[in-house]
Amino acid sequence: MAKELTSRAENYSQWYNDLVIKSDLAENSSVRGSMVIKPYGFAIWEKMQAALDKMFKETGHQNAYFPLLIPKSFFSKEASHVEGFAKECAVVTHYRLKTDENGKVVVDEDAKLEEELIIRPTSEAIIWDTYKNWIQSYRDLPLLINQWANVVRWEMRTRLFLRTTEFLWQEGHTAHSTREEAIEEAELILDIYADFAEKWIGVPVLKGLKSPNERFAGAVETYCIEALMQDGKALQSGTSHFLGQNFAKAFDVKYVTKENKLEYVWATSWGVSTRLMGALVMAHSDDNGLVLPPKLAPIQVVIVPIYRKPEQMEAIRNKVDVITSNLKARNISVKFDDRDTFKPGYKFAEWELKGVPVRLAIGPRDLENETVEVARRDTLEKEVLQMEDIAEKIEHLLEKIQDNIFQKAFSFRDNSTFYVDTWDEFKIQVEKGGFMWAHWDGTPETEQKIKDETKATIRVIPFDGKGEAGKCVFTGKPSERRVVFARAY
Amino acid sequence: MAKELTSRAENYSQWYNDLVIKSDLAENSSVRGSMVIKPYGFAIWEKMQAALDKMFKETGHQNAYFPLLIPKSFFSKEASHVEGFAKECAVVTHYRLKTDENGKVVVDEDAKLEEELIIRPTSEAIIWDTYKNWIQSYRDLPLLINQWANVVRWEMRTRLFLRTTEFLWQEGHTAHSTREEAIEEAELILDIYADFAEKWIGVPVLKGLKSPNERFAGAVETYCIEALMQDGKALQSGTSHFLGQNFAKAFDVKYVTKENKLEYVWATSWGVSTRLMGALVMAHSDDNGLVLPPKLAPIQVVIVPIYRKPEQMEAIRNKVDVITSNLKARNISVKFDDRDTFKPGYKFAEWELKGVPVRLAIGPRDLENETVEVARRDTLEKEVLQMEDIAEKIEHLLEKIQDNIFQKAFSFRDNSTFYVDTWDEFKIQVEKGGFMWAHWDGTPETEQKIKDETKATIRVIPFDGKGEAGKCVFTGKPSERRVVFARAY
Repeated sequence: MAKELTSRAENYSQWYNDLVIKSDLAENSSVRGSMVIKPYGFAIWEKMQAALDKMFKETGHQNAYFPLLIPKSFFSKEASHVEGFAKECAVVTHYRLKTDENGKVVVDEDAKLEEELIIRPTSEAIIWDTYKNWIQSYRDLPLLINQWANVVRWEMRTRLFLRTTEFLWQEGHTAHSTREEAIEEAELILDIYADFAEKWIGVPVLKGLKSPNERFAGAVETYCIEALMQDGKALQSGTSHFLGQNFAKAFDVKYVTKENKLEYVWATSWGVSTRLMGALVMAHSDDNGLVLPPKLAPIQVVIVPIYRKPEQMEAIRNKVDVITSNLKARNISVKFDDRDTFKPGYKFAEWELKGVPVRLAIGPRDLENETVEVARRDTLEKEVLQMEDIAEKIEHLLEKIQDNIFQKAFSFRDNSTFYVDTWDEFKIQVEKGGFMWAHWDGTPETEQKIKDETKATIRVIPFDGKGEAGKCVFTGKPSERRVVFARAY
Repeated sequence: MAKELTSRAENYSQWYNDLVIKSDLAENSSVRGSMVIKPYGFAIWEKMQAALDKMFKETGHQNAYFPLLIPKSFFSKEASHVEGFAKECAVVTHYRLKTDENGKVVVDEDAKLEEELIIRPTSEAIIWDTYKNWIQSYRDLPLLINQWANVVRWEMRTRLFLRTTEFLWQEGHTAHSTREEAIEEAELILDIYADFAEKWIGVPVLKGLKSPNERFAGAVETYCIEALMQDGKALQSGTSHFLGQNFAKAFDVKYVTKENKLEYVWATSWGVSTRLMGALVMAHSDDNGLVLPPKLAPIQVVIVPIYRKPEQMEAIRNKVDVITSNLKARNISVKFDDRDTFKPGYKFAEWELKGVPVRLAIGPRDLENETVEVARRDTLEKEVLQMEDIAEKIEHLLEKIQDNIFQKAFSFRDNSTFYVDTWDEFKIQVEKGGFMWAHWDGTPETEQKIKDETKATIRVIPFDGKGEAGKCVFTGKPSERRVVFARAY
């Protein structure tokens, strides 16, 4: 077929890019670094949003909306925050265009802003400026707010979904009366992210803390979930930050305690983005195309008719109507591909490319025998099933596929996880990829040197590390626990 | 209570502003002209989004996402489009900040963009630039795409929800192979908008066309729905544009017809925004606060316990648990206001302010008698009902309220609609407000003169005008039909 992909073995990076474009998820726009998310890709993102939004609401969070544009002075109030984001800010300086004497449309220099506005790269600054007015007493806490929004970070090297100048995300911003409660919140959200990654995207993740070098600009601690892609590179898939009182102090947000004292508020922020679409694609897909987890697939079942004569097509269509309504009654989304301009083989390849979890093919012989051919996208296995209770069978099959996708990714990660104890081993393994559990002396300097030499960073200081002591793989200095190194997206 | 509103009679405009802020819908942000949509307001917007999104999808539209930033040159391709929007554009000129020698954060002049980027005030330009690559043949048409997004238009005078520099909206952008199909699409969407306004927001609307002066920049025809607020001013509530081939020509988007000819594509675009929140507030609310239509109310039923002793509260709580679960089983959202820090009277006033459609009050005597006091927000009527089948009774009551709100607004509009035949009458009526059906000679000049003299504009050339001929109310020249004038938001 026309839309052949580069194979993963040949060029993983090219495979990814081809796949995202050819499967109609997204494409590069004419605007430098910005992508267009196409309907098929956006339908997956909508499913992600719906599932996450439900989880947030079930845990007491409410949605709200804060301004896109942030005055430069707000942005500068938290020193490490502005430090972290200043180098990648889109800056609005004027508010009007005009036509010049040559009829050309130009910026109107008379419409220069007194203070420049920054397009939000993240919203802590504008939100904490707002919270100042919302929080007076302990009765106003906790404040548990989430926002679905677009943000802009001026990236020099962009890749569809993984790193784009503009991206879509959710950002939670919560305020609490105690340090403990804020930490609990950051951990609760990390659990939600991990659950979502594993149960919906089907990607196993390591949970833990970031090292200081990888921490969010303005955070006291950054919690993260970290996934492993098929090329052995890590993908940070979600972060949840304990912000301490940093933003409360920068924006002067205090509350009156039950004991009538004035205290600074404690904070968290947390987010996942359209980057998760990249994780979804890279974790499961193969050289034939996408492999979508059923729970996030816009089309869960596609039905392809096999026929020569119009009357055969009509008989098939009648049967398909019944199957379709039974599937829909079980909340299974189904598409009947009745286009007469393409042959079945072409359609099979197209739906494989698009990662539809289950494909049914029905021909005249199936009608005679009351059977249907069922093909799984994840294993590419086919079998002929009796039509009886077919909707129920497919429902079970979708669950099985969801589970298998996760198990496969889990085994892959397992086989790509290494305990590395010497620097020589480290240098060899880093070229092969995977998660490397190694000892580290705990200093940012060592972390930086390892990065400079190997491009590997500490992805996560995992919660489920055993805490066994050892010696730093680089300096030989004492280490209390292993951390996880990898090259990352 | 603390949160008293200005009355409508005293100062309608102040009443509106007070109400939006005190009922926790939204507030002005520190960013000039931008608002913060608070959780209670955002919950209503989410319900609007969900209902509209379903209607769009049921009519074959898909969601997608296009870049926020549009290169200035794209924006300038359609002449009247840029003309219409150039005066209110936020312009991005730089992509980096830096710290200067004095430690101050400033724009880095070395990071000046070669070509300025415009924050989308609407997305025709970037979308038609994209469609150029998506459309080759008649098989690619129609293309029916919608986007939920934020846009920025630099407004000098802003009002919460009604006119803000940044606002949220949906914008549909469709491409068709024939003129007729594009016009049908624009009309289909207008019907969806009108249905939504009337059946969900409970606001009756006039449907029709805009006059050339009020047309969208770049459109051949603009269809609109126009509502009347309680102060007699009109609010444009949604527009659907037939764009002809203007954008196809500007962006060179052609397709191969079935007959193998190359033709320009036909287009529509259409949108409704958070402005609808303003319509919702202004059409129904009263001097006690919001009056929310049940279908869009985040909380449909609030239950307030009336008690003195803790054991009474416990008995009430047990009863409330049963009611709550019966209401939830009918998909009715309910809140039990069990705060012990406030008296019932305070709570009543608060939920009235927030427009909750139904309030239940339960005290010890109700428990004895198996009764409950039911108060309607729309009429402020109270009655004591037997507890038996209470959930069912409330479900019916909510439907009745939804209907009554619409009927009330409909009667109001009816009583505020005038046939005006002389210029003297016009000048008197325009000060009193309302929709004025008057004859117009069809020229932009006359329309402009009427606007200059009275601040009234042609809100809509209505579909359901009777088409009777007459003489222009201003010039006395012949007119084929009446059009609707009003002052507008």
